[in-house]
This record gives sequence, structure tokens and C-alpha cells, in this order.
Amino acid sequence: MTVRRAPENPIVTPAMLRPSMPGFHVVGTFNPGAIRHGDETILLLRVAEAPDPQHEGDVAAPHYDAASAQVLVKRWHVDTPGLDTADPRVIVLDGRTWLTSISHFRTARSRDGTHFEISGQPAMSAATELETFGIEDPRITLIDGVYWINYSAVSPHGIATGLASTRDFAAFERHGIILAPPNRDVTIFPERIDGKYIALHRPMPEGIGEHAIWIASSPDLLSWGDHRHVASARAGYWDDAKIGGGAVPLRVNVGGVEGWLAVYHGVSQSPMRYALGALLLDGRDPGRVLGRSRTPILEPEADYERRGFFDGVVFTCGLVEADGVLRVYYGAADGVTAVADLSLDDIAAGLE
Amino acid sequence: MTVRRAPENPIVTPAMLRPSMPGFHVVGTFNPGAIRHGDETILLLRVAEAPDPQHEGDVAAPHYDAASAQVLVKRWHVDTPGLDTADPRVIVLDGRTWLTSISHFRTARSRDGTHFEISGQPAMSAATELETFGIEDPRITLIDGVYWINYSAVSPHGIATGLASTRDFAAFERHGIILAPPNRDVTIFPERIDGKYIALHRPMPEGIGEHAIWIASSPDLLSWGDHRHVASARAGYWDDAKIGGGAVPLRVNVGGVEGWLAVYHGVSQSPMRYALGALLLDGRDPGRVLGRSRTPILEPEADYERRGFFDGVVFTCGLVEADGVLRVYYGAADGVTAVADLSLDDIAAGLE
Repeated sequence: MTVRRAPENPIVTPAMLRPSMPGFHVVGTFNPGAIRHGDETILLLRVAEAPDPQHEGDVAAPHYDAASAQVLVKRWHVDTPGLDTADPRVIVLDGRTWLTSISHFRTARSRDGTHFEISGQPAMSAATELETFGIEDPRITLIDGVYWINYSAVSPHGIATGLASTRDFAAFERHGIILAPPNRDVTIFPERIDGKYIALHRPMPEGIGEHAIWIASSPDLLSWGDHRHVASARAGYWDDAKIGGGAVPLRVNVGGVEGWLAVYHGVSQSPMRYALGALLLDGRDPGRVLGRSRTPILEPEADYERRGFFDGVVFTCGLVEADGVLRVYYGAADGVTAVADLSLDDIAAGLE
Repeated sequence: MTVRRAPENPIVTPAMLRPSMPGFHVVGTFNPGAIRHGDETILLLRVAEAPDPQHEGDVAAPHYDAASAQVLVKRWHVDTPGLDTADPRVIVLDGRTWLTSISHFRTARSRDGTHFEISGQPAMSAATELETFGIEDPRITLIDGVYWINYSAVSPHGIATGLASTRDFAAFERHGIILAPPNRDVTIFPERIDGKYIALHRPMPEGIGEHAIWIASSPDLLSWGDHRHVASARAGYWDDAKIGGGAVPLRVNVGGVEGWLAVYHGVSQSPMRYALGALLLDGRDPGRVLGRSRTPILEPEADYERRGFFDGVVFTCGLVEADGVLRVYYGAADGVTAVADLSLDDIAAGLE
């Protein structure tokens, strides 16, 4: 597997962005949706912001307050009894979970695919009660001239999947919650099959169930049904803990087989690590898995992937394909955005 | 709150049913869907069966095997290291959860609403990989001459909601999974609103999120979208741990207010107890809560409700209304079926 990471990596870092609100600083800019738009590559960056510290030893939880349409901050002293801050992404207290940052989306544009001009303003920010803890991990699918963006809508009610659309990446329209919590890592296919829209999604049952990849279909992109299980974590492999969708699937022909290539993320149990692999799905019935990466196609190796806000993560929400090369944009260590070129032939050779 | 439990309670018990398979015994017959059909009341009973013991000290997990289309049984000795049998409903081993029984549906018919003739044969049994651990808790909604039945489809992939239909309670047709796991306690409204089908549902996120009641709409009953949060557990009340849908909502006029009455279940933290209450929902916009029971409308008090397969449970999947009386069919202690008459006026008076 030949992976060509851009020498410029990481190509977007928090230092390149001004915060969107006073009293906040940017802690991460990662997991971008990616798509070609005219002669540009557009990224929709997830930008995570944390409240500036006020007192030594404070921890803070930003949250969008729908009543006042403002982001408020709840603060505790780190020694508060029962306060759990073991995971840098969350604060747990009295059985309730808060996030340490709140994310919005910002557009970035490039002609060469590596050097991006980043907007100073949010493209979309938390705007509803179901986005109290922010919006995360956008995926972009172009269908009939409209760019459909699905994303994680995070709130005390759970992590659900919201849908928005744009024609120009300037004006965005929301279309509500398309998948109830807990469900994220949704990728909508760029073509209808038998007249129906198709998406991979990742429910997150606990107890009975597992974090696995499912497929659903829709008559209108808004309502989804006919949910089927597609693929689970694999014992003895690099993706033995959990898996979920990554980039929007693309049509491929692999060794004469018409199919869909879906780059997904897999998490290993021990050590906990997020890596990327590929699923080859049947061209007519994409709920059928024809092949799956034996080993990761991209895994945390570079320093910016191994150490960051959350160590040992490569996580993609989008790629751009040209001439058999997949240009994969990805979040590294939950902090920065990087890009790597992968050969489709190499990926195909690694399927089993 | 006047509750008139039938003197015949429990009206259906395991002793009244023959098992559907050799080597099994009936451990529960509870949580029936209920509806009027001609001059009869029809119940669709959940019937839980457990494998007969083979050796002293064995525990057994029945499961439908889609490849052989048979129910198989996995057995362990109770002393197996790591085996967790604290909850009588499940067996947990190596992070995997199994059920101790497998449920199917059986019809029961009555002219007086209390004495039922129970079919000797299953109406529906586990038949797909997503029903490996059985089918549970049917709710029946009549729309345009078709009885739509939603139910929990339980498998190692999670607890999802499946849909089936019948016109005669003899032949049943499956329509796939309408809500991805973890999601159960779905009630489909008997009328369209603004041309759309409506349902309450109960996602089960862990960590970020809560077990709460949501609403969704659908163009075709198969695909669901526009998910919104409706109601959560309430600290300081009888439903402080979690809540979920119960019986199919019915149109009511309460003090001149046109609305939907939804009998739901609420669980208390300590002691853990399942009781029933009511939500009054806006007639045009049923995602809006107009009223909610201050105290339970039905709670475990009778002996068969307080002690059984799982103690301290009343749980409804269906009721039949006539002349201001709700005849609520319910599972008691996860073992038997009981019925009680509740006055709509009394329920209305207890809303706040």
C-alpha cells in the first residue's frame, strides 16, 4: 500500500483560524467533508472551539442555548467530586455528559487540493436544541446539482444525523434530523439505485448490539427505511472494536466487477486507534459486501496523527478521486486536517 | 384515579399456552398489541419461550439461525467464568449479550374483552437475521383497512423496529426494519397529519443522550424522518429513569382541547419499577406536549404485577377505547397479561 502524504501536512491547523466567538479559541480543525466544485476542491471543515480559561483548574463545557440563540459556558473546578475528565473530549458529571468543545463548519477552497483558503466565518453553526453540543463530521454528496450535507447533531438528547443542502457553499438550508440517535457516520451515495436514495449509517447500540455499518434507502433523502446490517467489527483484525462510515462511496470497476468503494474507519481495541480501510460493495445491491481491506489503507504513523487532541486517529469524511488516485482528506489526532493520495489499484489489491 | 382491574386477572398466563417448539416451555405471555376487529377484541400476544433444562446448573440462550431457519440453543454451565446472569432476561459473556428466552406472537380473540381464545400456533416468529433473538412487544394500528404491526426485532446487531401488516390476523406480511437500532416502543398514529404518517419512537443512546420519546413522520410508513425530541424522564417524578411509548395514541377532546392521548411507560430509578402514565399531545402538532400525568395512571400493585419473571412491571402495548373508558391490556411482571379499565376523565384530571 503506497500512501503519499502531502509534504505540507497538516494542511489546516487551529493556528490558521480565528475563533468565531470572543472568549473562545480554536482547538481543532479536522474531519472535513470534501468535494470538487467547478475547478476547486471545497472542504467543509469541522472547527472545534473551547472556552478560554477563566480560573486555574477550571473545566468548561460550551453549549448552544436555543432560547437565547447563544453559546453559553458551564464551568466546574477540576476537583469537583464525581467530575470525570479522563477523556479529553468530554466531561462526565452525575451521569450527564458534556463536551469540552463545540464544533461548527467552515468552508475552505483550493485549486491545487493542498493549499486552502479558509473562510473567516462559519458556514453552519449550532442552531437548534438538537445541536446544543454542536455540529460535527460533515459529509457532502452531489446529486442533481445540489450538495447534500449530512452531519452529527450533538445534544443531551443524543448524537443524531442532520441534513442540510447548498448549491453554492454560501447559503445552507437545514432539512431536520434524518436518523434518530444514536447514529452518525452517515454517507449518502451520489446515485439513486432503483429510484431510491441510499446511505450507509452507523447505529450505536450498547448492551444488545454493536457499533456497525448499516444501509438504508429513501424516497426523498428526508425519510429513511429498509435498514439492513452491512458489516461489523472483525475479531483478529485492525478493526476489531468498532467501525463506521468514512467518505462518500464512489463507483469503481475492480477487476471487472462493478461496485462501490466505501472508505470507512475502523477502531482497534488495544491500543485504541482509528485507521481507515475500504469496503467493496455490490454495484446493484450495495448492502452486499464483496471485499474488505485485510489491513488498513491509512493508519496513524505521522507525528501529527499519533499525537494531538486525541492520540492515534486518522478519520475521513471525504475524498476526491481523479485518474485512479483517491485524494483522502482526513482529521489527524482530532486536531488537524491532513491529506494523502492513495492508489485505487493498491486498495483493490488489499481487499479480501 | 379509579382503576378497575378485571377480577379474572391475569387473563392470559403461560399455563394456558402450549409451546410452539419441542424442547421449550412458555415462560411469559405478555405485552400484547390490542385492537378491535369487527365485534371482537384481538390481542397479539408476545409469547416468550425458554429451552427446557438439560443438566442441573445450565443456562441456555435460544436463538434463531437464519441459515438453517431453526431455533438453536447455546448452553453454558452457570459457573462459567465471566458469565453474568444477574438480570433474569439476559446472559452476558465476553461482552456479548444473549437472551434467556425467545419471543414470538400469537393471536387471541375475545367477544367480551376479558376471556380470550388463544391460537395454538404462532402468528409471527423470528424469521430473519435481525430477529435472531426473537420478536417482541407488537403495537397494532388500523389505517385504511390495513392493520400495521410494529415490533422489536432483537438480534446481536441490536434492538430495531420492524414493520408487518395484515388484513385478517391470519396472513402477515413483513416490510423490513423501519427504525435502526437501538430503537423500540414505537406507536404509529391511526391518522395522517398533513398527509404524513406519524409515530412516536424511543431511541436508546448511552453516554451522550437518554432513553426518551421522539416523534417522526413518514410518506409511506416504510421510511421515517424529521425526528424530533418530545419528552424525557423527569427528575422528582415517578418516571425519573427512562420513558417510552406504550399504546397507540388516540384522538381525544380534553376540556375542549383537541389532542392525542398517548399512554406511555415510565421507569423509576429506585426502586426500579415500570408504571404507566399519559401524554396529551397537540392535535395538529403531536410533537408538542400539552399535558402529562403527575402520578402514574397504573402502577404495580397487584401481586401478579409486583412479582414474576421481572418484578414490578406494568407495560402496555395496546388499549381499546369505548365511551370514555380505556380498556388497557398490559404485561405484568414480564410474565402474564392483565387488563384494567381506566376512565379518560380521571386521566385528564391528572394531567399537568
